[in-house]
Amino acid sequence: MFEKFFSDRILSTPSSFIREILKVTQKPEIISFAGGLPNPVSFPQEELKVSMNRIAETFGDKIYQYSTTMGLDSLREYIVERYKKIWSMDINIDNVIITTGSQQALDLLGKVFLNENDKVMVEKPSYLGLLQAFCLYKANFIQTKLDDEGLDIDELKNTIKTHKPKLAYLIPNFQNPTGLTYSAQNRKEVFEVIKNEDMILIQDDPYGELRFEEGKRIPYIGLNETDKNIYLGSFSKIVTPGMRLGFIIANKEIIKMVETAKQASDLHSNIFAQYLISDYLYNNDLERHIEKIKKLYKSQSESMVSAMKKYFPKNIKFTIPKGGMFTWVTLEEGKSSVDLFNRAIKKNVAFVPGDPFYVNQTNVNTLRLNYTNADSKTIEEGIKRLNEAMLEI
Amino acid sequence: MFEKFFSDRILSTPSSFIREILKVTQKPEIISFAGGLPNPVSFPQEELKVSMNRIAETFGDKIYQYSTTMGLDSLREYIVERYKKIWSMDINIDNVIITTGSQQALDLLGKVFLNENDKVMVEKPSYLGLLQAFCLYKANFIQTKLDDEGLDIDELKNTIKTHKPKLAYLIPNFQNPTGLTYSAQNRKEVFEVIKNEDMILIQDDPYGELRFEEGKRIPYIGLNETDKNIYLGSFSKIVTPGMRLGFIIANKEIIKMVETAKQASDLHSNIFAQYLISDYLYNNDLERHIEKIKKLYKSQSESMVSAMKKYFPKNIKFTIPKGGMFTWVTLEEGKSSVDLFNRAIKKNVAFVPGDPFYVNQTNVNTLRLNYTNADSKTIEEGIKRLNEAMLEI
Repeated sequence: MFEKFFSDRILSTPSSFIREILKVTQKPEIISFAGGLPNPVSFPQEELKVSMNRIAETFGDKIYQYSTTMGLDSLREYIVERYKKIWSMDINIDNVIITTGSQQALDLLGKVFLNENDKVMVEKPSYLGLLQAFCLYKANFIQTKLDDEGLDIDELKNTIKTHKPKLAYLIPNFQNPTGLTYSAQNRKEVFEVIKNEDMILIQDDPYGELRFEEGKRIPYIGLNETDKNIYLGSFSKIVTPGMRLGFIIANKEIIKMVETAKQASDLHSNIFAQYLISDYLYNNDLERHIEKIKKLYKSQSESMVSAMKKYFPKNIKFTIPKGGMFTWVTLEEGKSSVDLFNRAIKKNVAFVPGDPFYVNQTNVNTLRLNYTNADSKTIEEGIKRLNEAMLEI
Repeated sequence: MFEKFFSDRILSTPSSFIREILKVTQKPEIISFAGGLPNPVSFPQEELKVSMNRIAETFGDKIYQYSTTMGLDSLREYIVERYKKIWSMDINIDNVIITTGSQQALDLLGKVFLNENDKVMVEKPSYLGLLQAFCLYKANFIQTKLDDEGLDIDELKNTIKTHKPKLAYLIPNFQNPTGLTYSAQNRKEVFEVIKNEDMILIQDDPYGELRFEEGKRIPYIGLNETDKNIYLGSFSKIVTPGMRLGFIIANKEIIKMVETAKQASDLHSNIFAQYLISDYLYNNDLERHIEKIKKLYKSQSESMVSAMKKYFPKNIKFTIPKGGMFTWVTLEEGKSSVDLFNRAIKKNVAFVPGDPFYVNQTNVNTLRLNYTNADSKTIEEGIKRLNEAMLEI
């Protein structure tokens, strides 16, 4: 009845494939690798409870009142100090805006940059949430192949030359959906290709803190070498996703435009949450907390990798994650992961077929597995069932 | 440097006029009627502190985890029951989606309905936040005159006939910026004019609960008579704005599209805040709390009205508010409220000139005064100063 009223943009936006899948996987007998939820161990619940009572005492009505679009100064200051320390970035709080989760950062960047049909380079496969967000601004996506080292440089050169994209969106660390990480060498090569182009590069990094090996942070592409870089970060994977707090770091001119877009989008992000997370960060040892999360995820990823090695046929490829929450499985050429899903669900194991991570491509032979919400026994049992399902397609 | 990258939509969105004004009005010696902040008395701080500790005990990690795009069931259920009770609406939770403040509701409705140049009827003057939000979707606004009774029916008929707008956006109760309220008769007449049109009517009602006189709620336009009505509500003026929680009530088909748009915009609203407000609402007497807010605002509005009667020349018109947070002053024909602002600020009194509430119109002779953040003595002194400034233009 309302179809004639709806905008072209919303009618062309795919409804959530994953959400439909998650409905099927709710049953308790199903082992689900389909979700993308952080393990609850990553929420410092006791510390947050202390913080919430402290901010109520300290700040009174300020934690409930309207606030500024840019976000709480102390939280932005924390982010500045952290990025200065880790990455030697030359930034101050005018380079940082708080967003309602990283998802809102994507929406705001779409608002600020995209005219209809503007070309956006994304990885192949790419993050579903970005595809949805930019679809609403009628982006013209070009996907560039992602492999074990990062972007395929030849394909990248070709993409740049042929399409001259206005924006590129990349997830250099422990990518969602693939779990892949760009090597240091690949990052340098990518920057060589793009550095003289009229292109803004968005690097989304929700998982960057969750690197399993110590002392091996790899710098962002073109770090500190260009003003055309935009960095996205989030507290969702290291403190709490339910509070919906992320941030954008960029040139001030860009941040100013994002501020206008954000004002029209939700005025400002929840200020109670900003006081809470700020208080938590200044009064606790974040590194120790992150260590705890990493230790758990590392052991879970190892359980999954060894189960896959044990049960999967040799021609099935998968990512060995260096961090983050996902691995990515590639079936034999010609197989469909949607077919596999339909078999797997009957054996009470679930995952996300690769389809929604591609633009205009279906029945792909890839799939995403999440390992952060199961113990090693459950992981082994799930992978075993998955292998049984594979034999049927 | 980045201008060439920015979208047409963001370059055509006015930067915030009010925000610039608020910067000038920060000085402690200034009496400011410029803001739009609820009085902190409207935040039930002690009760919220009890609730936050209770939800932490009761729901554990759920209050920190990712959640559903539609919002917390118990909160949506509360809204359903309230609207059923007050308005006899035939709705269930599928008709309700939680938004990140009412401002996000506007953004989402823009996403869902607007193609470039689609016509949107708004009041003259209209809410600045709506003009900004829909400007980003390149709406073509048509403003229809608002007076003491509501919309000017002749002008409305003419607007509908000439422009055939796709959407209309109205604030029937204690409108921002004017403080005006549509009479019951006017609402009926408006519905008679629009009921057979192919038009969606959005009724935004953030102030509806703050009616100063008892027992006199006036039904929405076309209440329970059409599926083409969308109702917006908010907890910002009756519990807390800092938590950013609003909601949309509409036909399920519309809500489903809004859900897709919201998923791409911020995944879901802060779930801690939803548990918190839900717990507060189920465990406290909201009506009594609202009474307290109304009593204060009523006395503040009376102070402002009597000061205006005392000091302003007889040819200056103003709204006598029946609720809400604002009054609206109309200077003599030909005078500019921006001129007045420049004089007033030198006398240490501030307000918002009418300009940003109009589409393509500047140097108007109207202005907005907020009365919810000053005591009667301060209000009288501010109005006295404002009158002195008026004598200079």
